Amino acid sequence: MTLIYPGSFDPVTLGHTDIAIRGAKIATRLIVAVLDNTNKQPLFSIAERIAFLQDTLGHIRNIEVDSFSGLLAEYAKRKHAIAILRGLRGPGDFESEVRYATCNSLLSSNNIETIFITASPSLSFISSSIVREAAFHISTSNLDDSALRNMVSPSVQDALKKRFSSQCKKFY
Amino acid sequence: MTLIYPGSFDPVTLGHTDIAIRGAKIATRLIVAVLDNTNKQPLFSIAERIAFLQDTLGHIRNIEVDSFSGLLAEYAKRKHAIAILRGLRGPGDFESEVRYATCNSLLSSNNIETIFITASPSLSFISSSIVREAAFHISTSNLDDSALRNMVSPSVQDALKKRFSSQCKKFY
Amino acid sequence: MTLIYPGSFDPVTLGHTDIAIRGAKIATRLIVAVLDNTNKQPLFSIAERIAFLQDTLGHIRNIEVDSFSGLLAEYAKRKHAIAILRGLRGPGDFESEVRYATCNSLLSSNNIETIFITASPSLSFISSSIVREAAFHISTSNLDDSALRNMVSPSVQDALKKRFSSQCKKFY
Amino acid sequence: MTLIYPGSFDPVTLGHTDIAIRGAKIATRLIVAVLDNTNKQPLFSIAERIAFLQDTLGHIRNIEVDSFSGLLAEYAKRKHAIAILRGLRGPGDFESEVRYATCNSLLSSNNIETIFITASPSLSFISSSIVREAAFHISTSNLDDSALRNMVSPSVQDALKKRFSSQCKKFY
Amino acid sequence: MTLIYPGSFDPVTLGHTDIAIRGAKIATRLIVAVLDNTNKQPLFSIAERIAFLQDTLGHIRNIEVDSFSGLLAEYAKRKHAIAILRGLRGPGDFESEVRYATCNSLLSSNNIETIFITASPSLSFISSSIVREAAFHISTSNLDDSALRNMVSPSVQDALKKRFSSQCKKFY
Amino acid sequence: MTLIYPGSFDPVTLGHTDIAIRGAKIATRLIVAVLDNTNKQPLFSIAERIAFLQDTLGHIRNIEVDSFSGLLAEYAKRKHAIAILRGLRGPGDFESEVRYATCNSLLSSNNIETIFITASPSLSFISSSIVREAAFHISTSNLDDSALRNMVSPSVQDALKKRFSSQCKKFY
Repeated sequence: MTLIYPGSFDPVTLGHTDIAIRGAKIATRLIVAVLDNTNKQPLFSIAERIAFLQDTLGHIRNIEVDSFSGLLAEYAKRKHAIAILRGLRGPGDFESEVRYATCNSLLSSNNIETIFITASPSLSFISSSIVREAAFHISTSNLDDSALRNMVSPSVQDALKKRFSSQCKKFY
Repeated sequence: MTLIYPGSFDPVTLGHTDIAIRGAKIATRLIVAVLDNTNKQPLFSIAERIAFLQDTLGHIRNIEVDSFSGLLAEYAKRKHAIAILRGLRGPGDFESEVRYATCNSLLSSNNIETIFITASPSLSFISSSIVREAAFHISTSNLDDSALRNMVSPSVQDALKKRFSSQCKKFY
Repeated sequence: MTLIYPGSFDPVTLGHTDIAIRGAKIATRLIVAVLDNTNKQPLFSIAERIAFLQDTLGHIRNIEVDSFSGLLAEYAKRKHAIAILRGLRGPGDFESEVRYATCNSLLSSNNIETIFITASPSLSFISSSIVREAAFHISTSNLDDSALRNMVSPSVQDALKKRFSSQCKKFY
Repeated sequence: MTLIYPGSFDPVTLGHTDIAIRGAKIATRLIVAVLDNTNKQPLFSIAERIAFLQDTLGHIRNIEVDSFSGLLAEYAKRKHAIAILRGLRGPGDFESEVRYATCNSLLSSNNIETIFITASPSLSFISSSIVREAAFHISTSNLDDSALRNMVSPSVQDALKKRFSSQCKKFY
Repeated sequence: MTLIYPGSFDPVTLGHTDIAIRGAKIATRLIVAVLDNTNKQPLFSIAERIAFLQDTLGHIRNIEVDSFSGLLAEYAKRKHAIAILRGLRGPGDFESEVRYATCNSLLSSNNIETIFITASPSLSFISSSIVREAAFHISTSNLDDSALRNMVSPSVQDALKKRFSSQCKKFY
Repeated sequence: MTLIYPGSFDPVTLGHTDIAIRGAKIATRLIVAVLDNTNKQPLFSIAERIAFLQDTLGHIRNIEVDSFSGLLAEYAKRKHAIAILRGLRGPGDFESEVRYATCNSLLSSNNIETIFITASPSLSFISSSIVREAAFHISTSNLDDSALRNMVSPSVQDALKKRFSSQCKKFY
């Protein structure tokens, strides 16, 4: 039974890896799929985001990392996925997720399901945008980056540090 | 892969059967498990509730109907279930469900997961208590019971009609 | 165009009268209808609750005060009401109100609508149960009752004071 | 009694037409008013959006379709409307709607009311932005457009198909 | 500057002690005040609940443990408290807490404030009722009580174990 | 005990001044700190926003007005603040505020706390963006500006009037 776990993962957080690891205990195969959305300007490229996911999740036997563009329902069908996996951090995520789940079911010829896992309480405050903002402030304030340790893996932490310090050289 | 779908099912509604049918598409085996909670005074007995579930879901190859008392995490372990399945009707269900999911994970030696499916929008307003209240009013007002048709199966509809009219004979 | 504004009104608060007065500006006729629910033990009798409503709303030309038991949808039909009126104090009221509105529409042969007005912000914290609890504490602590002035009309304030002080004589 | 039902309607969905039809049962006259907001870049022009509304709602005797710019409270006053009508799809809509309703009441010399109808459960997941996104994916993936049938009228469905396929010719 | 942290604490959880310890860093003096509510049948007596609080918080220099009955606003005034302290575990706690905060301000002659701290994410799922239910299931299922270690202090854990096993002897 | 009350205050509203005045009753010193966020294009400059805050809050003995850029946790530490103060207008504010509070605690070497006060009910609908939108409509519709009186101080009201009428001269 194949599950697709889609997202921007810009960058992957400890919240994402927790959902993926728990999802992989339920699925036979879990595909973590990076959305290639040309409308948004990401912090990290698709290749970088895939590398971070490989680095943090690649050791798990039944997890694959991939990217996709276009319609999620079509991608899921091509991959013979039985359902989409999503994490819910709080009740505020609920209404938009229902809209997407219903829409994906309508758009797929096989009425693909979306199943949800709730974030582990200790990780429910983490989001990629919180991580990016914290990393920006840490690099511009010359703080030590211990706070990021609670939110991302060491390799993502290093990449965030380099990314923002190189940006600072260029733009300030 | 076995999922447990626990609940009071007093009585089973079209909302419940929708969750069970969609859950059975994801699972190898889905056990719909009636909670035998001695603290609450139910409208229907465990045997009646199991019969309604058999009647509406028994034709689906990989669905079993059962009842349990005591700790859900223990019951799930005995049944070799990989996860618990729950429906979410709205954001208001979220916080209490997270508490139960976290508690069930802590109480189980194998950290059992809870996965959620959101109710189909057209069924999201249905609950067993709404059904019981509507059925009571229908029987005491001598209304035709067409409204119940949108909320429960024909066999549950008949049982509700008989239950309340017999109660009326006794208590009024 | 007739609207029904149903409720327990035990007792009527300034929040209720605000909804009724604003509803009466939209309707040709507004019937404020006290629910005679035999399951709950109210603080004030149906006759007392009707008297408070008459006292605070009776001067408004197109408001009638009434009581009903049984199915709201049936009562609304008998009164030729085009819709039910309800106040919403916060997002937490939403989900249960949708369930009741959908159920009332299904239970009525003419699919009766429910329309909502949001509570005026300055009154959104008031509820009958908050009023009853405050009145109880005021009478047992010998506080002056100025706090109730922000929540109920003078006649209700007097009645609450008498009700609790007489109960104190009897029960303590 | 005149009600104004304002919105962007870019494009009108089955959720909007449901609110309008149910609103028209309560009102003597219902004006569906397209907001001419110069700040946002719409998918369809004001003229197109009015034509879609006429096409789906024009057959209802007491519904008028119009457009307005500037302050809603001023427009409502010019139209002698007694209240504004809005749909609520979920509790997440509540807080921003209260802010607008309170602001519109303060900005109008006659304290115009806003009344709310909750979306029919089966339509509560639909929004114009979900429709636009689904239509975009359908046209770029060469999917059949059956999914849109659950969200918009046939004429809007056709227009969406043409709009996105012509854009694809231009921009890809 | 004195803060009052009121609650039932039946029993005190790690969520409560986290709020108290963080509150004590802000206040000069923090009074943890057990509500003596004669309407509810508690699991532990006032004396037991005070002992648990002493045991887990008594070593903190500026924390006092006390109990009160009657109006919180009156008690706070007698203690010269400048504000009431409450924890918020999720958005679902918000609306009822606003009602109590507004009511307490109105009922106090000095308009006492209520300040809120949000629960630490890893503890946000804990509540006294979840603890009581988990403890009941653990004792009746002969599970080891490691799950309680994540929710209460060792002394509360012991007391829960004894309480339920002695009840089992008596009532089963 | 020093509290920091940070915000954009573009412009300060009666909701903000209510939170500040109530916060100043709890704190020894309250610093109202305007966030100098170079990413957003504000309506009023930092100097103007500080002047409005001085004008409305400067008469309160223990309130200081300041501005900051960069990391809030660093600024709070430099000011020897014991906690950050934030207002909560509704449950919808909760989830993003928890994320910021947790992040600020992680980013500060002393785990700075965030304490919350709920908005006074009568002011809970006000936001700076509602104020800006209302002021824009008032100036372009030649309405009298009585509505703004319920949302901002007289000096802010004057400034909004001038700002938008001068913009109209320039841009229309």
